[in-house]
Amino acid sequence: MHVKTVDWAPNGALRIIDQTRLPAEECYLDLDTFEGVIEAIRTLRVRGAPAIGVAAAMGLAASLRRWVKLPRERFVSAALSAADAIGAARPTAANLGWAMERMRKMARGTTGDAAAVFEALLQEAQAIWREDQAMCRAMGEAGQTVLSVGRGAVGAVGKRKSAARVVNVLTHCNTGALATGGMGTALAVVYVAVERGVKVHVWVDETRPLLQGSRLTAWELKKARIPHTVQPDGAAASLMQRGKVDVVLVGADRVAKNGDTANKIGTYPLALAAKQHGVPLYVVAPSSSFDPKCKSGAAIPIEQRAADEVSLTGSPAFNPAFDVTPAALISGWVTERGVLRPPFKA
Amino acid sequence: MHVKTVDWAPNGALRIIDQTRLPAEECYLDLDTFEGVIEAIRTLRVRGAPAIGVAAAMGLAASLRRWVKLPRERFVSAALSAADAIGAARPTAANLGWAMERMRKMARGTTGDAAAVFEALLQEAQAIWREDQAMCRAMGEAGQTVLSVGRGAVGAVGKRKSAARVVNVLTHCNTGALATGGMGTALAVVYVAVERGVKVHVWVDETRPLLQGSRLTAWELKKARIPHTVQPDGAAASLMQRGKVDVVLVGADRVAKNGDTANKIGTYPLALAAKQHGVPLYVVAPSSSFDPKCKSGAAIPIEQRAADEVSLTGSPAFNPAFDVTPAALISGWVTERGVLRPPFKA
Repeated sequence: MHVKTVDWAPNGALRIIDQTRLPAEECYLDLDTFEGVIEAIRTLRVRGAPAIGVAAAMGLAASLRRWVKLPRERFVSAALSAADAIGAARPTAANLGWAMERMRKMARGTTGDAAAVFEALLQEAQAIWREDQAMCRAMGEAGQTVLSVGRGAVGAVGKRKSAARVVNVLTHCNTGALATGGMGTALAVVYVAVERGVKVHVWVDETRPLLQGSRLTAWELKKARIPHTVQPDGAAASLMQRGKVDVVLVGADRVAKNGDTANKIGTYPLALAAKQHGVPLYVVAPSSSFDPKCKSGAAIPIEQRAADEVSLTGSPAFNPAFDVTPAALISGWVTERGVLRPPFKA
Repeated sequence: MHVKTVDWAPNGALRIIDQTRLPAEECYLDLDTFEGVIEAIRTLRVRGAPAIGVAAAMGLAASLRRWVKLPRERFVSAALSAADAIGAARPTAANLGWAMERMRKMARGTTGDAAAVFEALLQEAQAIWREDQAMCRAMGEAGQTVLSVGRGAVGAVGKRKSAARVVNVLTHCNTGALATGGMGTALAVVYVAVERGVKVHVWVDETRPLLQGSRLTAWELKKARIPHTVQPDGAAASLMQRGKVDVVLVGADRVAKNGDTANKIGTYPLALAAKQHGVPLYVVAPSSSFDPKCKSGAAIPIEQRAADEVSLTGSPAFNPAFDVTPAALISGWVTERGVLRPPFKA
């Protein structure tokens, strides 16, 4: 059973697990102001493109509760401003803008007084969360074909039967329950495989500079008792060179119309290594991470983070949170609708 | 002026800067036992293939001083055992075995009593150090052609005159004064260029898991007032994708006869990214890092280090200290004798 990354607190606040304190402490925060939600998103207490979208929607709804006695117009205006502010908390994740747009539409389109609008927003946030859980499960199931490709390909030349073989999945960053409102994106494929009795071993890139792999993915996999091994990002190519990886599964923060994919910094060199060694690399992401307005990777905004995440001497740092992997290096995009290829429909 | 990584203490001990405490503290250790020298090499208080060779030779000599009144045979036997033990402290760096072999030869080949043998060993260690300093300078000078290739290539299409252009060098791990007995290997090329008035900016891979880039290279470059920027290893490919890198310069721990090169983990994916973007990658290493007995990369022993350097959850880790870059990805090998290409002579 996976951890609950987002939830409702008994008083109606958004409850999140504070991911900056993992794996040392399992600590939960209740947030009922939009400033608190923005701070939590900016500082990566909640991270992972789908989880950010869900937390933003639930957090927005929770933060509006106190204004439920305002006149309708003032309530709607407050809701729209708060949605704009939360939507600007991080620039790259497509789901954040997408979730805030849904909430804004609902605020504008609902008739009745502030209480009615609030109730509609609460239901919309709940729907976004529920849909995310369903999407995770659907991606996990859709990804099984991808796993069996990896398994079959190696099984065919290996000595053991392919059914009994361990599938070696390599992953980058955290794409599990902690990154979503459900069981994950790329890691959902692993969770579903394990449910079905497939033997999986996960190679976990530690994922510098914020160590989402060694802090979060390893923690999740350990809780779920799934065999895994952590390596420095720079060692992933060595694993492929040694023939130890069957398939690479990564998430996405934004997918452009042509398939260029923004994901955690380090994904692009991983894709180059996978290409070099003939290892398939699949992006696993929900529809909400696909941005039809972005024609190519060049149009994806890339967030630069603080120098002190990487610099120990006060020297300047180049610290982009994401990189863009060209579509040509990606074998396929696993979504809740199956495995897709570009150009994607709007 | 660069830092002195190794030196003689007034009492004849080996004095090293403790690199595990940089950049927080500039702390020196005096070592006069071979156990102390082994500990310092194993725990990376002294690291970098050439510096390990020099420190091993000087440390061996220093540790023998106390036995100088023994009968000749017992002294020689102690010297050979100590050289074997120090030589086994780390498996990958070719210079360590090479330096210990020189010391063993000198111990066996010197006539006279223990004091005479000790004096010969002291002189041999001093020679190894002096030669390393000279080799660093020679590599730095030989590398200027490589820098001007990078500079010329971009200058030709750029708008500014090539002489006024900043050359953007990307480097991995620490290959400066801290890695040698002199001014460095790959960074010596930068130091010599700066001496000659060339404008250089260095992109510094932080180099996980032990952060030799952000801890040591950034510290050295800051002391030398050379412009530089630190990035996570996974961001180096993004820099090349954006056209920000003219040339990649790395060191080597061991070069096989066919040119396959073992260097700090993360060098191989860096070489793949450089190839992808047409950025030349040069290995800068002294002759002592070339191992004619190694036919190819497959014969280079790769040291595995402790899991707790990368694992935060008690999960197992894959933590090789080095990877092997195939010769085909390397544009040339800059040595004290000029820029070479394989197969190398013995």
